[in-house]
Amino acid sequence: MKEIQSVKNPLIKETKKLNQKKYREQKGAYLLEGFHLIEEAVESGQHLMEVFVSERGMKQWSEWLQEQFADYYVVSEEVLKSLASQPTPQGIVAVVAQPEEKMPAFKGGWLLLDNVQDPGNVGTMIRTADAAGFSCVVLGEGTADLYNPKTLRSTQGSHYHLPVLRADLKDLVPKLQEKMPVYGTALDRQALDYRQVQAQTDVGVIMGNEGQGLNKELQELSSKNLYIPIKGQAESLNVAIAAGILLFRLLK
Amino acid sequence: MKEIQSVKNPLIKETKKLNQKKYREQKGAYLLEGFHLIEEAVESGQHLMEVFVSERGMKQWSEWLQEQFADYYVVSEEVLKSLASQPTPQGIVAVVAQPEEKMPAFKGGWLLLDNVQDPGNVGTMIRTADAAGFSCVVLGEGTADLYNPKTLRSTQGSHYHLPVLRADLKDLVPKLQEKMPVYGTALDRQALDYRQVQAQTDVGVIMGNEGQGLNKELQELSSKNLYIPIKGQAESLNVAIAAGILLFRLLK
Repeated sequence: MKEIQSVKNPLIKETKKLNQKKYREQKGAYLLEGFHLIEEAVESGQHLMEVFVSERGMKQWSEWLQEQFADYYVVSEEVLKSLASQPTPQGIVAVVAQPEEKMPAFKGGWLLLDNVQDPGNVGTMIRTADAAGFSCVVLGEGTADLYNPKTLRSTQGSHYHLPVLRADLKDLVPKLQEKMPVYGTALDRQALDYRQVQAQTDVGVIMGNEGQGLNKELQELSSKNLYIPIKGQAESLNVAIAAGILLFRLLK
Repeated sequence: MKEIQSVKNPLIKETKKLNQKKYREQKGAYLLEGFHLIEEAVESGQHLMEVFVSERGMKQWSEWLQEQFADYYVVSEEVLKSLASQPTPQGIVAVVAQPEEKMPAFKGGWLLLDNVQDPGNVGTMIRTADAAGFSCVVLGEGTADLYNPKTLRSTQGSHYHLPVLRADLKDLVPKLQEKMPVYGTALDRQALDYRQVQAQTDVGVIMGNEGQGLNKELQELSSKNLYIPIKGQAESLNVAIAAGILLFRLLK
């Protein structure tokens, strides 16, 4: 246990850089905030490289911290605030190593995200895929970073329950299709009503961009494109809501 | 058309106060940001009390503005920014009168929100209720304000497509039940699997707080409590995702 009082401490200055994607990729690490997520990271066997806890946090978690970690830093509220993305951080921040990405076997449910830009939507869809019993989530080009603090917060820890990978979906979809149908999504009624599709044990679903929907090339690659009939005057559903409806319908 | 260059202008100072709920209620008005939402407000016959547009906004919308409004203000970027909740506002902000709340007939789909605290969740659920063909959304105690800028942004204009009211759910539920079943939601498996319930032409659904779920008293009042089976290791679904799955299932 060491103490850090100043935001100018070199370790703090280095660590803060992990709020930027560029540095996260350079270092192969990311920042994780809040006790619940950090506990999930420990339980799922992640490698926690550093742990920073405020004095207030110490009062709540010192016993747990001593059990879990050979070493950690007790920092001032100001230092903790400088590391965290939220205005009122929960009192604990960790630096976690990005795990190696391993492509699992092509079976079960696969959720593929193409150019989904909002980190909250990406995190919520990872959480939903977990709850629906999916096997894997793949983040395609243009999709928000898993290690963005907002994405992590929205996952509620589900990214520790199933693999979340990055891949080029145009390469992946044809390979996946050798083992399962991969459904695209479309806003127009020329596509297939999702209620016409039976639940399956192996199934892929591609969700697209919030504004533009799924890109044409992936729509053409997909086994079929599904739509959710809109009954009111809304133009569309939020992409994470649409994913929730489809994931809970399509996987047996 | 008048010009305002200074954030110290008394009208601007007054208008800015509408970012606080207390003042919105006092004045019976709210701020609406962005062209898309303002266009929807005009088309649905809302009363726009003031319109503020930046010089950049004028380049895009001056023709439309002249057609729609007898008068409006052209303001500096700085003034516009001071009114808007987003760091990069879209160039147009309006003051809109809160419409009178009228309880519609008890038929069709009714979505009731109890103590849902996140404005993004509330707005997304209003948008989803619209898309699912629901007739009414009721915001119960503790639920985020419809006129919070984040709620409005998430509705994508759906609150102009169906009535959104405030009411005490403990009073409303028994009255609504004279005409339709009103389902609560629960996280435990003692509740009824939602897939056991058939779609109906008149149906009520109550969604509860993000952390605690639906409060006990409303669970006891409800016709039945439904749960969505969670298959993976996720502890729960985001409340708006759960609502999406239920609303698209339960209304015929």
